[in-house]
Amino acid sequence: MNTLGRLLRLTTFGESHGPAMGGILDGLPAGIAIDLADVQRMIDRRRTGRSTLTSQRRETDIPEILSGLDADGRSLGSPIGFIFRNTDARPTDYSDLEQRYRPGHADYTYDLKYGRRDPRGGGRASARETVSWVMAGALTMQWLRTLGISIEARLTAVGSAGYHDPLAGIINDPLLGSLPADESVENAMLDEVDAARRECDSVGGRVSCVIRGLPAALGDPVFGKMQSRLAEAMLSLNAVKGFEYGMGAAAAEARGSDAIDLFEPDFSPMPMRTDRHGGILGGISTGMPVCFNLWFKPTPTISRPLPMPDCKGSLKDVTAHGRHDPCVAMRAPVIVEALAALVTGDLLRVPQHSDISNDYGKPLV
Amino acid sequence: MNTLGRLLRLTTFGESHGPAMGGILDGLPAGIAIDLADVQRMIDRRRTGRSTLTSQRRETDIPEILSGLDADGRSLGSPIGFIFRNTDARPTDYSDLEQRYRPGHADYTYDLKYGRRDPRGGGRASARETVSWVMAGALTMQWLRTLGISIEARLTAVGSAGYHDPLAGIINDPLLGSLPADESVENAMLDEVDAARRECDSVGGRVSCVIRGLPAALGDPVFGKMQSRLAEAMLSLNAVKGFEYGMGAAAAEARGSDAIDLFEPDFSPMPMRTDRHGGILGGISTGMPVCFNLWFKPTPTISRPLPMPDCKGSLKDVTAHGRHDPCVAMRAPVIVEALAALVTGDLLRVPQHSDISNDYGKPLV
Amino acid sequence: MNTLGRLLRLTTFGESHGPAMGGILDGLPAGIAIDLADVQRMIDRRRTGRSTLTSQRRETDIPEILSGLDADGRSLGSPIGFIFRNTDARPTDYSDLEQRYRPGHADYTYDLKYGRRDPRGGGRASARETVSWVMAGALTMQWLRTLGISIEARLTAVGSAGYHDPLAGIINDPLLGSLPADESVENAMLDEVDAARRECDSVGGRVSCVIRGLPAALGDPVFGKMQSRLAEAMLSLNAVKGFEYGMGAAAAEARGSDAIDLFEPDFSPMPMRTDRHGGILGGISTGMPVCFNLWFKPTPTISRPLPMPDCKGSLKDVTAHGRHDPCVAMRAPVIVEALAALVTGDLLRVPQHSDISNDYGKPLV
Amino acid sequence: MNTLGRLLRLTTFGESHGPAMGGILDGLPAGIAIDLADVQRMIDRRRTGRSTLTSQRRETDIPEILSGLDADGRSLGSPIGFIFRNTDARPTDYSDLEQRYRPGHADYTYDLKYGRRDPRGGGRASARETVSWVMAGALTMQWLRTLGISIEARLTAVGSAGYHDPLAGIINDPLLGSLPADESVENAMLDEVDAARRECDSVGGRVSCVIRGLPAALGDPVFGKMQSRLAEAMLSLNAVKGFEYGMGAAAAEARGSDAIDLFEPDFSPMPMRTDRHGGILGGISTGMPVCFNLWFKPTPTISRPLPMPDCKGSLKDVTAHGRHDPCVAMRAPVIVEALAALVTGDLLRVPQHSDISNDYGKPLV
Repeated sequence: MNTLGRLLRLTTFGESHGPAMGGILDGLPAGIAIDLADVQRMIDRRRTGRSTLTSQRRETDIPEILSGLDADGRSLGSPIGFIFRNTDARPTDYSDLEQRYRPGHADYTYDLKYGRRDPRGGGRASARETVSWVMAGALTMQWLRTLGISIEARLTAVGSAGYHDPLAGIINDPLLGSLPADESVENAMLDEVDAARRECDSVGGRVSCVIRGLPAALGDPVFGKMQSRLAEAMLSLNAVKGFEYGMGAAAAEARGSDAIDLFEPDFSPMPMRTDRHGGILGGISTGMPVCFNLWFKPTPTISRPLPMPDCKGSLKDVTAHGRHDPCVAMRAPVIVEALAALVTGDLLRVPQHSDISNDYGKPLV
Repeated sequence: MNTLGRLLRLTTFGESHGPAMGGILDGLPAGIAIDLADVQRMIDRRRTGRSTLTSQRRETDIPEILSGLDADGRSLGSPIGFIFRNTDARPTDYSDLEQRYRPGHADYTYDLKYGRRDPRGGGRASARETVSWVMAGALTMQWLRTLGISIEARLTAVGSAGYHDPLAGIINDPLLGSLPADESVENAMLDEVDAARRECDSVGGRVSCVIRGLPAALGDPVFGKMQSRLAEAMLSLNAVKGFEYGMGAAAAEARGSDAIDLFEPDFSPMPMRTDRHGGILGGISTGMPVCFNLWFKPTPTISRPLPMPDCKGSLKDVTAHGRHDPCVAMRAPVIVEALAALVTGDLLRVPQHSDISNDYGKPLV
Repeated sequence: MNTLGRLLRLTTFGESHGPAMGGILDGLPAGIAIDLADVQRMIDRRRTGRSTLTSQRRETDIPEILSGLDADGRSLGSPIGFIFRNTDARPTDYSDLEQRYRPGHADYTYDLKYGRRDPRGGGRASARETVSWVMAGALTMQWLRTLGISIEARLTAVGSAGYHDPLAGIINDPLLGSLPADESVENAMLDEVDAARRECDSVGGRVSCVIRGLPAALGDPVFGKMQSRLAEAMLSLNAVKGFEYGMGAAAAEARGSDAIDLFEPDFSPMPMRTDRHGGILGGISTGMPVCFNLWFKPTPTISRPLPMPDCKGSLKDVTAHGRHDPCVAMRAPVIVEALAALVTGDLLRVPQHSDISNDYGKPLV
Repeated sequence: MNTLGRLLRLTTFGESHGPAMGGILDGLPAGIAIDLADVQRMIDRRRTGRSTLTSQRRETDIPEILSGLDADGRSLGSPIGFIFRNTDARPTDYSDLEQRYRPGHADYTYDLKYGRRDPRGGGRASARETVSWVMAGALTMQWLRTLGISIEARLTAVGSAGYHDPLAGIINDPLLGSLPADESVENAMLDEVDAARRECDSVGGRVSCVIRGLPAALGDPVFGKMQSRLAEAMLSLNAVKGFEYGMGAAAAEARGSDAIDLFEPDFSPMPMRTDRHGGILGGISTGMPVCFNLWFKPTPTISRPLPMPDCKGSLKDVTAHGRHDPCVAMRAPVIVEALAALVTGDLLRVPQHSDISNDYGKPLV
């Protein structure tokens, strides 16, 4: 299915080299002032073609909003439909590949599932799909900001370069700590990407994310845990191979006495002193920062000849010539922020129980 | 919400120290022969009280099936309702804690969310909830076996002991490889649990799982990717802090040329030579083994005095005396298998597109 | 599927002559005081065996509540599991019919769908299923009452006897009008049921329902209209053949000038003078009474020989001897009230947009 | 929410006088050949402006399909995105009304729900929304035709003119019977519309629909009954005030012996001799024709001065001058067919149990 979310829902469509990408964001509350320039800035962060380190495809990526806003640019509460025209589609780039399955790509499984596929640029499996995710996330962010919620994701590793434990600053000092940003490490990561590109290869990476200002009590305790909803959304992103939150994998090696967060007296200045649990207990947000890491595999398309089968399984060496990022993780942070915004917004739409038992359902007139 | 799945759905209820745990499994196909002894064996694998290394709570854990089977023990296609009576509930174990929030537990967030909670043993947040998950998974497994699908999960690390790369055997030799089982490593892991227990502490762990015999073409390409559905389910399990599949986190450090799976000529004996992608491409199963790792935090309840706040935030040192596992990961493999069975069964219920365009919708009479 | 509702959800199980009926009500807000005697009164209204005019099956129909309430009988916000034991099941009543399809029953379609069925009393298709609906509706009613919402359904026609236009009183005088109750008409309806019974036949009927005190702004404008949700729920009830709300079918014969409700100055004492639209405009509640009618077919089981086919289509005259109501509509009002409560509660759980843009999402601490 | 369906899902957007209407149809099987001329014919049946009896708004109503089809016009299995530009929007027609609530319209409830609304032509509440429904239904019909399923809806009453019992032909002779079509009755209905228009009034109507060729075993027995799904969809259509299927309301006056369908020997030439149950037993299709009636209220906008309140409740006589149909039921048949196609397609996507227990889940390779 092509829908993410329960009450705040994004439904998308579009093939990479078809006429347009687009989507419908349904469930954004009415009355949110949308700053379109701000939305565009978020979309532009995702855009390609700006350096030799990312794909050379050039799309203007300016959305056309078709519904859901009033004349003052405020949300009506109705679904927001939007499209992005595909202007730099080059279907011929892929003609050699039409009859072949690229290793590491969805070509093979799409053919098995549908009995056909759009061979141009991966069709629905293309990373171009995420332009609609960023659009929807940017719209949602306009709402979240009014509630004091902020979301930040950063590239924190590429191949062997990167930060050792990027969430440590937040976990150890949830009030003042932040994701790391060190120029020498940033340069080392860029060097890794460039090295991979020069060797006609690609390289994996890690993205870290923190959500701050989140109210407590979001998420459901059993099957709708906040970490489940985040993981479900993040694993939707092509190339993501894993998700951890708070202490994450390190918890498997830890003792209990080193893996809990002690409460602060009077729950002040924050409820807990540390944030090893990553802002979630029992599936429900604590009001502490929510933080998590994602691991990305390297782009499977590399500019080297690889044996590719046709649908009968007959192999032939082919070199893929499409325009691809050598490191998909590089462009991912803004997409991760968008997905985190969508999940957060969706959880905010679920009525909180204690609201209901007090004031809910009172007539509005 | 207390429901997992879309077309094969488990809905559960029950507080740890209330009258009963139970659930409804809806969507199991009609005509599946249920071997109740086999179901019970799977439930028994989860049960506590059998050694000093797991919680001393003793429950018989014999389900009462209230609907959904015919006189011959075959599924009717109607929902299967079942309950487990709580016979060894000891609400008084927790009386000291009723007014206090335990660090690392859901007490604090439940109170924020609901304005009240069942203080006895964690209520819905208790690991006792998973007895219903194992029941539902065991019933589903009866169906999956008729399709040649098998699921195996193993404890592969505890604290600093364990296997280095437990999925390597499967990834490198998907046809013959398996999860590791080495007696010295197994003993080292047990030693870690015992050491933690003796020190009145607890310890984390890792569980690895492989699904074999899965048909290709399961999962949806964009927001219903198989890895999303697995991660969503697995992160529902208390104490799970992260999920990775196939190469997982290691992919972040790899080059593309080392992170793809080359096709076999004629797709034989399996479609690909290796299984770095973990059996899923573009969100859709390839027909190769699906394999993943989960990281568990240590049990947050440790038998040491810890400062616990009341609802006003006033701290007092309290020692929790409930019966708890020093390493929750130890009992987790059978629960992971059950969740994997539920996700797999749910994906199997979604009609496959190529079926539809050929034969689907033909009158049955 | 066996689930009704989106945010307040009832999932049920149970075959008519199996061990038990039961369900899980998920999403009831925390902190609702449940008056169990009041719940039982509603269940008792549904119960059979109290006169010769309804089925002679005798069940005590006392629910066992297995979860979701605290020691004070207040809802915890967690799912409420409950069961009703089937104590007066008589599978042998149906033995003649096991191989035959009864006209007007689900026997034929269940066999087509599942390849098997529970031949005892209709299995899942039995009216006994509704005991769980009434239980869940009665629990929900405890919440609705705290909000000043009341729901009343009445039998308003049996065969040719009954009230001409039972909603007229409410439509013409929404402030003071009510469903009709005239002793001579009530007796005429009972006479119709008795006449049908004596002639070994059955008879249809109509039930009318009004929901009062409903807040405005419930329901979604396009595909989640309040009338859609009510119709969906009401058509789930066996034997219901149609649904109309407000003016209903009469609107098809009316002119526009006679089919609108004029507003009251200052929206006082109610927003509109009349209630021809039945409390809903554009799918959204207006704050006026919501009123609707349902038509029920006669019980298809009649105590006369009827030609019944086996699964090969070979016909034989058989007389059904189960215990059945000659007029299913007679027992339906309380079930209709329960379904209306579930739909209303579910709509109340959806966050109202104007709430969100003001206060929603503020931290609770 | 703006989504209809579970597995075949239509999500829509668009305000009547905004830039465009549009939607995403998700879940259509892959490989369906789409005859776009045929789709356009269905859209054209809905279009306005072709006579003095329907609204004078003129839209070309030519969809732009943005995704989901391959170069040969076959469905890819991916979501089909489409838009209709609003070319004849005249926001100024409604300027007088911006501050006023029209009786019988959604103005009042939208303002209560969202705290704002698009006052131009009703925004989301406009009948223009249905252009997307017809588009999606027409696409689905392309699939249904390959399965031998046909759907026909007709206007069968306007005010006091029309057919007495339009489903009688099908109910009494399900093999050969059809919806009635008598020239004198058709003319009488047109005369009623014209009379209402000349008197600056509007008039209600009834639409009847039959689905033929439907496979048996569609629909779920308890809460997903086929009649529930049809009623839910049909009540989504503005102005629909009621739904009945098969014998419908007449069943309330009938005896059981006159309200059942006797089986045919050998289930041949159809399973039953008559179709009083309207093609559904126990919520599951029987393979007989599915037939139902819908009642429509008159257009609430009439060209006469009516007292309309502003948001404070201060009344003033205003005459609405927008372009409206005097009888909304006239244009409804094609929309009813589209909704019936969407419901039918959705039910066809649910795996049938007996398929599963035999062949389902077998590897495709």
